[in-house]
Amino acid sequence: MKIDLNSDLGEAFGPWRMGDDAAMLEVVTSANVACGHHAGDPVVMDRAVRAARAAGVDLGAHVSFPDLAGFGRREMRLEPRELELHVIFQLGALDGIARAAGHRLTHVSPHGALGNMALADRATAEILVRAVRAFDPHLAILVLSHTELARAADEGGLASHALFLADRAYDRSGQLVPRRLPGAVLTGEAEILSRVERLLAEGCVVSAQGDIVPIAAESILVHGDTPGAVAIARAIRRRIETAGGEIVPLSALRAG
Amino acid sequence: MKIDLNSDLGEAFGPWRMGDDAAMLEVVTSANVACGHHAGDPVVMDRAVRAARAAGVDLGAHVSFPDLAGFGRREMRLEPRELELHVIFQLGALDGIARAAGHRLTHVSPHGALGNMALADRATAEILVRAVRAFDPHLAILVLSHTELARAADEGGLASHALFLADRAYDRSGQLVPRRLPGAVLTGEAEILSRVERLLAEGCVVSAQGDIVPIAAESILVHGDTPGAVAIARAIRRRIETAGGEIVPLSALRAG
Amino acid sequence: MKIDLNSDLGEAFGPWRMGDDAAMLEVVTSANVACGHHAGDPVVMDRAVRAARAAGVDLGAHVSFPDLAGFGRREMRLEPRELELHVIFQLGALDGIARAAGHRLTHVSPHGALGNMALADRATAEILVRAVRAFDPHLAILVLSHTELARAADEGGLASHALFLADRAYDRSGQLVPRRLPGAVLTGEAEILSRVERLLAEGCVVSAQGDIVPIAAESILVHGDTPGAVAIARAIRRRIETAGGEIVPLSALRAG
Amino acid sequence: MKIDLNSDLGEAFGPWRMGDDAAMLEVVTSANVACGHHAGDPVVMDRAVRAARAAGVDLGAHVSFPDLAGFGRREMRLEPRELELHVIFQLGALDGIARAAGHRLTHVSPHGALGNMALADRATAEILVRAVRAFDPHLAILVLSHTELARAADEGGLASHALFLADRAYDRSGQLVPRRLPGAVLTGEAEILSRVERLLAEGCVVSAQGDIVPIAAESILVHGDTPGAVAIARAIRRRIETAGGEIVPLSALRAG
Repeated sequence: MKIDLNSDLGEAFGPWRMGDDAAMLEVVTSANVACGHHAGDPVVMDRAVRAARAAGVDLGAHVSFPDLAGFGRREMRLEPRELELHVIFQLGALDGIARAAGHRLTHVSPHGALGNMALADRATAEILVRAVRAFDPHLAILVLSHTELARAADEGGLASHALFLADRAYDRSGQLVPRRLPGAVLTGEAEILSRVERLLAEGCVVSAQGDIVPIAAESILVHGDTPGAVAIARAIRRRIETAGGEIVPLSALRAG
Repeated sequence: MKIDLNSDLGEAFGPWRMGDDAAMLEVVTSANVACGHHAGDPVVMDRAVRAARAAGVDLGAHVSFPDLAGFGRREMRLEPRELELHVIFQLGALDGIARAAGHRLTHVSPHGALGNMALADRATAEILVRAVRAFDPHLAILVLSHTELARAADEGGLASHALFLADRAYDRSGQLVPRRLPGAVLTGEAEILSRVERLLAEGCVVSAQGDIVPIAAESILVHGDTPGAVAIARAIRRRIETAGGEIVPLSALRAG
Repeated sequence: MKIDLNSDLGEAFGPWRMGDDAAMLEVVTSANVACGHHAGDPVVMDRAVRAARAAGVDLGAHVSFPDLAGFGRREMRLEPRELELHVIFQLGALDGIARAAGHRLTHVSPHGALGNMALADRATAEILVRAVRAFDPHLAILVLSHTELARAADEGGLASHALFLADRAYDRSGQLVPRRLPGAVLTGEAEILSRVERLLAEGCVVSAQGDIVPIAAESILVHGDTPGAVAIARAIRRRIETAGGEIVPLSALRAG
Repeated sequence: MKIDLNSDLGEAFGPWRMGDDAAMLEVVTSANVACGHHAGDPVVMDRAVRAARAAGVDLGAHVSFPDLAGFGRREMRLEPRELELHVIFQLGALDGIARAAGHRLTHVSPHGALGNMALADRATAEILVRAVRAFDPHLAILVLSHTELARAADEGGLASHALFLADRAYDRSGQLVPRRLPGAVLTGEAEILSRVERLLAEGCVVSAQGDIVPIAAESILVHGDTPGAVAIARAIRRRIETAGGEIVPLSALRAG
């Protein structure tokens, strides 16, 4: 059983730090780097890209609405064409940094409010898929299973990889329980680890209502915003390896 | 005798317009498109790139300091590495937009204060050359002859094309008379046209002091900011063609 | 019969121009100046404030969502407290510029998407009223009659002045026909002028469906974005004066 | 003997944190709050202003070049009038937030590259003094003694308070040793405390070359960027109080 571990990197900006990229790069096999729209500037992007390359970690573009002050977490209503071009702009910018650093893009992951809209809204999902294909049809997109984004990628002929969010509750339709609802975010390490084990062993998750829901997942998302999060990420990695799982980058999954 | 006509495009931003791109695209054979640092946003960049492609006009990246409010005209002191990465970011962003639009970058032209510094200051010139080479060593850079940027490109092994500024006075060393000095900017159409003719026929310009100064030029820069400027640009084009000159894009000059 | 003529000013940004402030200042008696969130920078704001002062024109703050690239026309979902503080920030910034220029704020007018939301959504209207009161309870707010903003101002104890939009169709409830619907924007000068006359003489407007709808209005909004708009603004002014009306600033209306 | 303790606050931006404002507010009697140009947004500004008010701490405006990405540490060449208006804009914005929060501005402190230029360059110092006077002639400005800014404030008729930087080396002319030189920044707590004692007892500092240099100081600047800095700030406060000194806000010094 092979699976990727994925995290977000490069979310500093100018003088301001965020997360512990170095710690996460010891754990994950793929990473999504901010492209200057919700975080990141050319120096921050370069640092994250070079660190990912040095660690042998696959590089993705963490694309967002243009909203630095709101960290890309605010819904924005861009024209469809405008949104498509903002995504292409970000892909190009990160690709340029990566090219100069000797790394290369393998995937795309939508951030924050753009991600939420792309999961739930078919039109936004299709804009995202169209943007990625127009830029480079060989890139893959990270999705959650049972979402509009997963369907739009399939129908648009774009490779996709399903993420599993080990610390988020799912509902019986296989979608995330919204963050504002009680119980949406899990913090107990034991519970999170047992969910990972069940996903790997049986390909399913127990929903907030107690149903067993099949979940396709090729990658597990781990967070690095807090020291506790890094510890959980390490524990997930150990648990997978102890169970005989192999942790490999997304590109190796596709190649295999 | 073959020469390129070059202009700056895509200097609108959000709701604000600047210049008459459509008029200039009827005159020029190469264009430099703003990359979002001094002007341009993804929508403006895409529009300029597609218009250039439709007109058969070569596409360059008009790179700048990150200074939208100052239109890239203010000197900024970035760290060398930071400046290099800002240039790469812009090249990548415009290249992404171009790739999605079916066009491709052929050259780079530094804008405003960055351009002035790169002409006069060797360290800045070398940063610029290094950034372009790291991104794509097959791109050319637009320079003025007798400048640090021309020398840095030569020594750095980067192809360069020399621009002639038909409406700017030159000094006896072949450099531009600074804009703040009297007589630095020429406005008389007859004088501008006779300078173009002499450049084409004899490869020289008469300096502000009356010296005859040899000037290498593969491209003539024409401005589009005002209706008068477009008329002069058209007159330059007609004069060259009447004199038997051939106006070709930069890429054809290099290929030839 | 006394009425104010009102317009938006100072919508340039950095090197980019918009509208003809000088022409509008010959026509209007009150103006709303952009505060850097959708347009304007300190230099543009100062120029507009000083021109308004020299012309004896009342000064208002044209407050907006923080969205320069979208000219404040995109809906944004800020937290209530965040929106309130963004409005206060803008009021303070323009007030500072005004104080240094020897002018003073008399009113506030919400721009673009913020304005549309404040007219239709009570919660947004109340945030706006609360922000203005917290900054200076003696300021007035520009509203349209029959809207949530008018009601929120009344209930919040904030002075308000009702605007009439001479070139926009109204529905039978006295609200504007949304811009995206056919017939929402009138362009015929004769029709616009006859609507102004009827408003002044009878205090009503004929709705898009043909109903006669009472409209309270102490100010008529005129646009300056195009040469045609300035001509219509001048014609409105002449028509009012010919009909014996007196055009006075908002502050004179309140004082009177 | 009475002296003020001063620190910089509110240097977060959007999702990014910086410094420990709560800890510093237990130590200082005056604070300088960022105004959105190098750090701070309306929410961050409001939080800092309210915390300062609750702690009974005097409020200053920490004005900067408009340079969020560079944290105001990069020299910029603005036109004199443009710089003046940027300062006024910031004063107005923070004053608006303060007014709504029930606090009030007492002083101004220039940040980063603007501060360095204002200390050393008379023209920049005069622009700053002019901006503060135009906004509110009753505000004071924080200076270092023996600098152009101190002289410009005196000649411009603006009240000033001299800061002492306990952790920075001074040269024999009484100016700071530039940060890039070895020994410019002191880190030993004992040395820093003994300098504070000598300043209070004898009104002088020992320069890097060993000279005794008279220093006027009404306020001691303490830093809050690191846990160690807060500990030193607390130690300075204790040492002053143990020595019988009284720590009072700037406004009390002036009133007294």
